[in-house]
Amino acid sequence: MPSARSTTLDANTVRRRNLAAVLDLVHRRRGVTRADLTRALGLNRSTIGDLVTVLVDHQWVDERDDQRRAGVGRPSPLVVTRDRWLVAAVNPELDVIDIGLVSLGGDIVERSRTVVDRPTPAEVVAITARVIGDLAARRPEARVLGTGVAVPGLVRREDGCVRLAPRLGWRDEPLGAMLNAQLGMPVEVANDAHLGARAELTFGAGRGAASLLYLNGGASGIGGGIVVDGRAVTGSAGYAGEIGHLSVDPQGERCACGARGCLETVVRRDALAAAVGLEHPDDDTLDAALQAAVAAGSATVQDALREQLGWLAIALRSAVNLLNPEHIVLGGHLAALWRALSADQREAALADALAVSASAARLDVAELGSTRLLIGAAELAWDRLITDPTEVPLDAVRS
Amino acid sequence: MPSARSTTLDANTVRRRNLAAVLDLVHRRRGVTRADLTRALGLNRSTIGDLVTVLVDHQWVDERDDQRRAGVGRPSPLVVTRDRWLVAAVNPELDVIDIGLVSLGGDIVERSRTVVDRPTPAEVVAITARVIGDLAARRPEARVLGTGVAVPGLVRREDGCVRLAPRLGWRDEPLGAMLNAQLGMPVEVANDAHLGARAELTFGAGRGAASLLYLNGGASGIGGGIVVDGRAVTGSAGYAGEIGHLSVDPQGERCACGARGCLETVVRRDALAAAVGLEHPDDDTLDAALQAAVAAGSATVQDALREQLGWLAIALRSAVNLLNPEHIVLGGHLAALWRALSADQREAALADALAVSASAARLDVAELGSTRLLIGAAELAWDRLITDPTEVPLDAVRS
Repeated sequence: MPSARSTTLDANTVRRRNLAAVLDLVHRRRGVTRADLTRALGLNRSTIGDLVTVLVDHQWVDERDDQRRAGVGRPSPLVVTRDRWLVAAVNPELDVIDIGLVSLGGDIVERSRTVVDRPTPAEVVAITARVIGDLAARRPEARVLGTGVAVPGLVRREDGCVRLAPRLGWRDEPLGAMLNAQLGMPVEVANDAHLGARAELTFGAGRGAASLLYLNGGASGIGGGIVVDGRAVTGSAGYAGEIGHLSVDPQGERCACGARGCLETVVRRDALAAAVGLEHPDDDTLDAALQAAVAAGSATVQDALREQLGWLAIALRSAVNLLNPEHIVLGGHLAALWRALSADQREAALADALAVSASAARLDVAELGSTRLLIGAAELAWDRLITDPTEVPLDAVRS
Repeated sequence: MPSARSTTLDANTVRRRNLAAVLDLVHRRRGVTRADLTRALGLNRSTIGDLVTVLVDHQWVDERDDQRRAGVGRPSPLVVTRDRWLVAAVNPELDVIDIGLVSLGGDIVERSRTVVDRPTPAEVVAITARVIGDLAARRPEARVLGTGVAVPGLVRREDGCVRLAPRLGWRDEPLGAMLNAQLGMPVEVANDAHLGARAELTFGAGRGAASLLYLNGGASGIGGGIVVDGRAVTGSAGYAGEIGHLSVDPQGERCACGARGCLETVVRRDALAAAVGLEHPDDDTLDAALQAAVAAGSATVQDALREQLGWLAIALRSAVNLLNPEHIVLGGHLAALWRALSADQREAALADALAVSASAARLDVAELGSTRLLIGAAELAWDRLITDPTEVPLDAVRS
């Protein structure tokens, strides 16, 4: 691989990387034995022992006996996460700001939803600072070391500037810099669907997949996230994954983006909702209503499902032919659509893609539900912290 | 980055990686000073000196005074490639097998084209073995250490099995294993457009780009290659990049792949050729004829250009919205089409893509012409060799 070639290393870098590799594995598996670490990382037992000791000293992990393996031989100590270091996760939406504190291992340990109509960036900053303070006060033994933000819009990767968030009415808002100045901690900002993909890859339906295509059906459109060789594909400036703007009908209706016949002009939450007589249902309500209507034999709903599936299949074919993903995960109203389909209808979803790629692709619905965006946002903050586990505040460690 | 986290390392691995990083830079830049190596790789002078010495001992590189920097201070020695180790590159096509020996730095030092009509895999193996022998005999001071093959078809990454090469009439042919058994050296096989992308990224129009989308217009269709964060995106099984099979017209003509309205059903070399009254022209002839026709004000040619550009723009919009690439490179008849367009027409190519992604994307024609597939195929073989530069045949080194 070209990129592996161009990495040069000294001894400190090696130690830091090995610490990061151990901590990353404990994080992703939510606890792992020393024996598993030795096997998974290909380092010898004493090296693993030294690395774990450093992580214990820095209050990232604890060790305890592995209760799962009583009996034969000496049990290998289980390395488990501590809740000493937390990150904050923030997801501003049309009518609510969802904020949580997330532990290593991706658990949301505290969460608060603040109702607010189309918040401005300044409101998001003020509410976020207050809520993180409130939530952190419930966890006096912990310390919040970083913040990740999931935004329903196009985010410039390098500085967390929100270039365009149509739902929120934002354009060129330097949200990352504003939050960083207010919170006094590292802040990372990214597109919400990218982070949903990241969460499903690490802890959800895509666990263990090397490549993944995630489609997120939301109130105002369809976003997406791409993972290749285990890495998020952000694009050259952070705007990759806009599967809602694949062309499916060149003669179609004009999209908010200006082009004709984008996927999100024809595969729509409101069309599914209308078919079951609902307005603005949440995902679970829509899901239940569609399944009930299918069970009741509703022809209206079958027509709607058939039409939505037809358009979705065109976009999936383009994306699958371009990316040959191992796993495709559908979230939001696309998950509701998928669950309402018959086995035959599901077969049709990839029928027009190249056979070699279609046969290799597994299609599932997202697993993490309403927690996926906060978990994904937290991953952004963990990325930076896990890269250098000895860089936690030393005064805090000593106290 | 998730994948960086999970890399663990010991001292041997570090040394091997650093050797690889030095050799890779010498390869990609076709020669570099020690001072540049120190700067580019972030290692100190004595470490770089030691690494270069190992590479000299293993006959990969030579050192000589840098003539470019006479005058001020002591000149930094220039590290240049040697032609001691070569790789073979093979590209079987409809009517010819193109075979070359390629040096470090991507120079085709020997080349031979064997005319043969729709060769079978067995014929490719026999001809390749003979031609590599003939070419190697012209270079008695060199030794061929590996072979890369560019196939116009879908290639399974893990074992070099050609799943489908419609032009050649191949299906499930274990070409990699067959060549390996005959040649007695490592053989890597990949899709031709992937390798075109790789060549343009390393030595051509995409030099230095972190992400690239390459579209290759060939006689029987349109292939593609994707690079993200400096790495080739092969897909989960090797079939990524099939941009010729993006949907552009759901009501369109049926494609050879079975779906309707794929890009390659409407953007066609033969349509461009027909507009200028040619049949089966090569790229250069088509290019010259289109430009002459545009200069002469041909309305027929303008109509053809406009139609082809319209369809191409739909596929580019989908791909750009999905991938947010830094660089888009057009090869083959797509390069001829592009060169025949006016500045205004070129503007229209990305006009329907999301503005944030379109404004970040640079669109160019391929630079490497008819050498790009052999250079790309050679890169496959270099990948493996450069990863561990001390693994050259020691008996050969000693002799």
